[in-house]
Amino acid sequence: MSVVRVWAPNVEAIELDTPDGRHPMVAADDAPGKAGWWESTNDLGPDALYRFAVGEHTFADPRSPRQPGGPEGWSQTVDHSVFEWTDEDWSGFPLASAVVYELHVGTFSPEGTFDGVIGNLDELVDLGVTAIEIMPVATFPGERGWGYDGVNLYAPQETYGGPDGLRRLVDACHSRRVAVVLDVVYNHLGPVGNSLREFGPYFTSAHHSRWGDAVNLDGPGSDEVRRFIVDNALQWVLGYHVDGLRLDAVHALHDESAVHILDELGDQVHAAGRRTARTVWVIAESDLNDPRLVRSNEAYGYGLDAAWSDDFHHAVHVAMTGEQDGYYSDFTGLDDVAEAFNDVYVFGGKFAPSRERTHGRGVGDMDRSRFVCFVQNHDQIGNRATGERLAHLVSPERLEIAAAILLTSPFVPMLFQGEEWAASAPFQYFTDVDDEEVGNAVREGRRSEFAAFGWDPEDVPDPQDRETWNRSRLGWGERSEPLHARILDWYRRLIALRAEHTDLRDGRASATTVHHDSGSDGLVIERGTLSIVVNLGEPTSVAVRPDATVLMSNGDEPSPATDDGGECTVSVATDQVVILLHTS
Amino acid sequence: MSVVRVWAPNVEAIELDTPDGRHPMVAADDAPGKAGWWESTNDLGPDALYRFAVGEHTFADPRSPRQPGGPEGWSQTVDHSVFEWTDEDWSGFPLASAVVYELHVGTFSPEGTFDGVIGNLDELVDLGVTAIEIMPVATFPGERGWGYDGVNLYAPQETYGGPDGLRRLVDACHSRRVAVVLDVVYNHLGPVGNSLREFGPYFTSAHHSRWGDAVNLDGPGSDEVRRFIVDNALQWVLGYHVDGLRLDAVHALHDESAVHILDELGDQVHAAGRRTARTVWVIAESDLNDPRLVRSNEAYGYGLDAAWSDDFHHAVHVAMTGEQDGYYSDFTGLDDVAEAFNDVYVFGGKFAPSRERTHGRGVGDMDRSRFVCFVQNHDQIGNRATGERLAHLVSPERLEIAAAILLTSPFVPMLFQGEEWAASAPFQYFTDVDDEEVGNAVREGRRSEFAAFGWDPEDVPDPQDRETWNRSRLGWGERSEPLHARILDWYRRLIALRAEHTDLRDGRASATTVHHDSGSDGLVIERGTLSIVVNLGEPTSVAVRPDATVLMSNGDEPSPATDDGGECTVSVATDQVVILLHTS
Repeated sequence: MSVVRVWAPNVEAIELDTPDGRHPMVAADDAPGKAGWWESTNDLGPDALYRFAVGEHTFADPRSPRQPGGPEGWSQTVDHSVFEWTDEDWSGFPLASAVVYELHVGTFSPEGTFDGVIGNLDELVDLGVTAIEIMPVATFPGERGWGYDGVNLYAPQETYGGPDGLRRLVDACHSRRVAVVLDVVYNHLGPVGNSLREFGPYFTSAHHSRWGDAVNLDGPGSDEVRRFIVDNALQWVLGYHVDGLRLDAVHALHDESAVHILDELGDQVHAAGRRTARTVWVIAESDLNDPRLVRSNEAYGYGLDAAWSDDFHHAVHVAMTGEQDGYYSDFTGLDDVAEAFNDVYVFGGKFAPSRERTHGRGVGDMDRSRFVCFVQNHDQIGNRATGERLAHLVSPERLEIAAAILLTSPFVPMLFQGEEWAASAPFQYFTDVDDEEVGNAVREGRRSEFAAFGWDPEDVPDPQDRETWNRSRLGWGERSEPLHARILDWYRRLIALRAEHTDLRDGRASATTVHHDSGSDGLVIERGTLSIVVNLGEPTSVAVRPDATVLMSNGDEPSPATDDGGECTVSVATDQVVILLHTS
Repeated sequence: MSVVRVWAPNVEAIELDTPDGRHPMVAADDAPGKAGWWESTNDLGPDALYRFAVGEHTFADPRSPRQPGGPEGWSQTVDHSVFEWTDEDWSGFPLASAVVYELHVGTFSPEGTFDGVIGNLDELVDLGVTAIEIMPVATFPGERGWGYDGVNLYAPQETYGGPDGLRRLVDACHSRRVAVVLDVVYNHLGPVGNSLREFGPYFTSAHHSRWGDAVNLDGPGSDEVRRFIVDNALQWVLGYHVDGLRLDAVHALHDESAVHILDELGDQVHAAGRRTARTVWVIAESDLNDPRLVRSNEAYGYGLDAAWSDDFHHAVHVAMTGEQDGYYSDFTGLDDVAEAFNDVYVFGGKFAPSRERTHGRGVGDMDRSRFVCFVQNHDQIGNRATGERLAHLVSPERLEIAAAILLTSPFVPMLFQGEEWAASAPFQYFTDVDDEEVGNAVREGRRSEFAAFGWDPEDVPDPQDRETWNRSRLGWGERSEPLHARILDWYRRLIALRAEHTDLRDGRASATTVHHDSGSDGLVIERGTLSIVVNLGEPTSVAVRPDATVLMSNGDEPSPATDDGGECTVSVATDQVVILLHTS
């Protein structure tokens, strides 16, 4: 190991604290823009405990690679060269052809660890999944959490299995030709154990987010803060071999400088991929409906590989459930599903009532594989008061329709763990914060959030209660029960269909045609040689292109009939979807 | 006149108040996104006084076209169709060929009015100016002010001559083939008489600027706030025939929505220009060094016509004065002048010490006429404690060099009133705020700002003192005095040279070549058939392209000598500039 370095322009003096005692640190570099770095005068071996001491106070390393005792404990050195990778032959693949599966390490498997995920990987391969997306693993307080309040951004959660656990999972995925996307949070840090302010200007009052002062991306000292973020992204790509990053809520990255942090991060991550001859994806979760994120660098965009499009989710969700609370009030049903297939964003420059303003910008004919879509994800399930999945809200038939719409779409489809078998477990919001004040704030914040929607506080699960986490764990045993098996089979067949027919993965704008009468309950989506016929209304007969044979249906399989004039029609029942192949 | 309309979603009820009494107003339109408009049930004739009453309080119209008694007085209707324009044959001209002259109505002429400006217009035409840029005229408190604390954005300052006064000035300019650029301030409003918060969500706490809550450009209700701004821009173009807008400090327009307000405003103003068959410019003052502002819409930029580049000013200023205070500490002299000629921005992705961060983005080979440059302007003079012009800081020779660098540059050159004769008047910061609290705050703010730079408060002119304004008025009579006449002649000849030689107006990146050894006191700028030789050091001999004849020089005119090998050299004294024409 070499010397320990830390950027701490806020301190006058700083010491390296180890179980053996304190050691002086010296200013490392005073070059313009590089001031504030300190380095230790002695080396630490591998797996050595350390932290930094400023006067009487001790703090974890902002870039700590491992936090065996959590955010408030010692940091520990890690020798990144020891792990024996077996994925030399893996180079990734284009995102456009992926089927992504979002999972939460702590609830996906009985063990709740990285190794536990490995135990069920073959089930995902069998399902047809080609990439997993792991909810954040940066060290967070306690044993249970979604991960969005991570504090030690470089240190994989110890209770999940720490650095080597994550490496074993990535290696196991690669041996099965499965890519790994890691969800990373750069828009804020959790409050517990967060001592970055002691070190440097990581935050700024010039911009605000829902979490308070924003991360400092464009103010004095921001070069090193940006470097902290970019280096973190590079650590996952280079040191952990991940194939992609999913950037949490990039609309909360406030950066008005001429080179946006996303532009810089995308460039650096892609360059690292090129250097290591691997395909690496950068995917943004964004509430901005701004095509700039995924427009190429040549077209002066940020050049990210994809952005999440919540509009697709909301359109499908409202069409299936009829819900109209909160942001769902902006959506009307199949009209918006048709709009999402036609234009990607339902709000691409249109007035959004719940926002009380015009929202978004059209994407034009940008390739649809630049957008990750889903009919369920951790947020859309877990941000409901009691964490109901779509399966808990609609009939199996509608669940099947939603899945069919997603998995025949030109977008990159993403499932949420257990969605494939309509898991009975909800996905509720859970935490395990030891700090009583913060724990109470989390609980009360959650309750008051839903009180605004008319919920009795007592009916909102307590995030701090271990049972809330326990309820959210997947029960793999139920998959053989009739309803679950039916849905699992449906998903498996849809994913196989997507794998078999390249037309379904054709993301060109011209490769999708939608037939839909405004306000009607029917929708026909043409995807090259395939048609997807959806009926949410009364039984009816729908005109389709000729020479059609049925590939899949979630009801009685209809017989497409061609009349004397060559007109082809197919009969569809209420809540039926029929997927057709046209042979001419 | 028609009914009076006002957007006031914040009120439950509102009345039209006139000298005759109050009249009810009714909700005008509840269409989605259009809610909150009220309209009067009776018509007002032309030139009628009115205001709005909410309970006991009365307020000026946010879109008041005229405020005869200032921000806190009555609004007055204006019939925009009465003025008799004589500029039917005027259609403007491309910004790239302009020589702009910034002026302040209240100090430019003895009268301090729009009509007063007309009185000296022929002097500007004689100088060679082709466009004037008028510092803000939106109604501000009192009689004296720079105009950046305007409150009634649609109403030209009454003490300057009100709406018809401004129209007479624009018409008089057009009759002389002079374009008019109006400086407009959309990033904040002055505090005195500002009642916009009573009407609607014009401001947001989601973003902050140096003036407090930012103008609400991307939050709930922002559609109408944006419309308020865009309609204001269109009023000046359509109702006042102005040829361009200079947008104040656009870095303080905080807008994270997918369509930036500058993009929208640029589109709308340019469309209005096309509709009326006129060339209309949108020019941004920006501290962002972000080429996106002036990149074309086709290249996903905002498509503005030009941006100010302070870097050019700072580079030249430091080269001439050697000052190193504040932001001047980022600049080193001729090295940066060379950089500005080569790359436009000195900080185009480089660490800026005074900002403590990397700043800006390179502009590549973008046309240099997309940038307005200057060696003096109202801010760079007036934001000094005592408002010294460059003429008060350097020798006449250096003043001449600065002027030569500016007026032979590929940028759009802009002068500040009186610069052309090295006016003896400073341009100090002055206000005339009747509100004692605000007036004191202005005075103390100014003093404490300069106390930070070591100034004794007593030495900082009192903005509220009438004498501060009086000192800042131009003394046209001095132009015949030797030094002033010398400088005026120099500027006149330089502008004539720029008009004569199209090479000097060639903004293509390839049309400028700079020869400069880092750290040296010499600079040769090649502009097509012309070369500009600058020497700030000891007398020396400089190699230039052959077949050179001297067009202008601010010292003894040298004789370019060609030696046997065909090498051409020219002798230059200390602080001499020589402009050469190459005949081969």
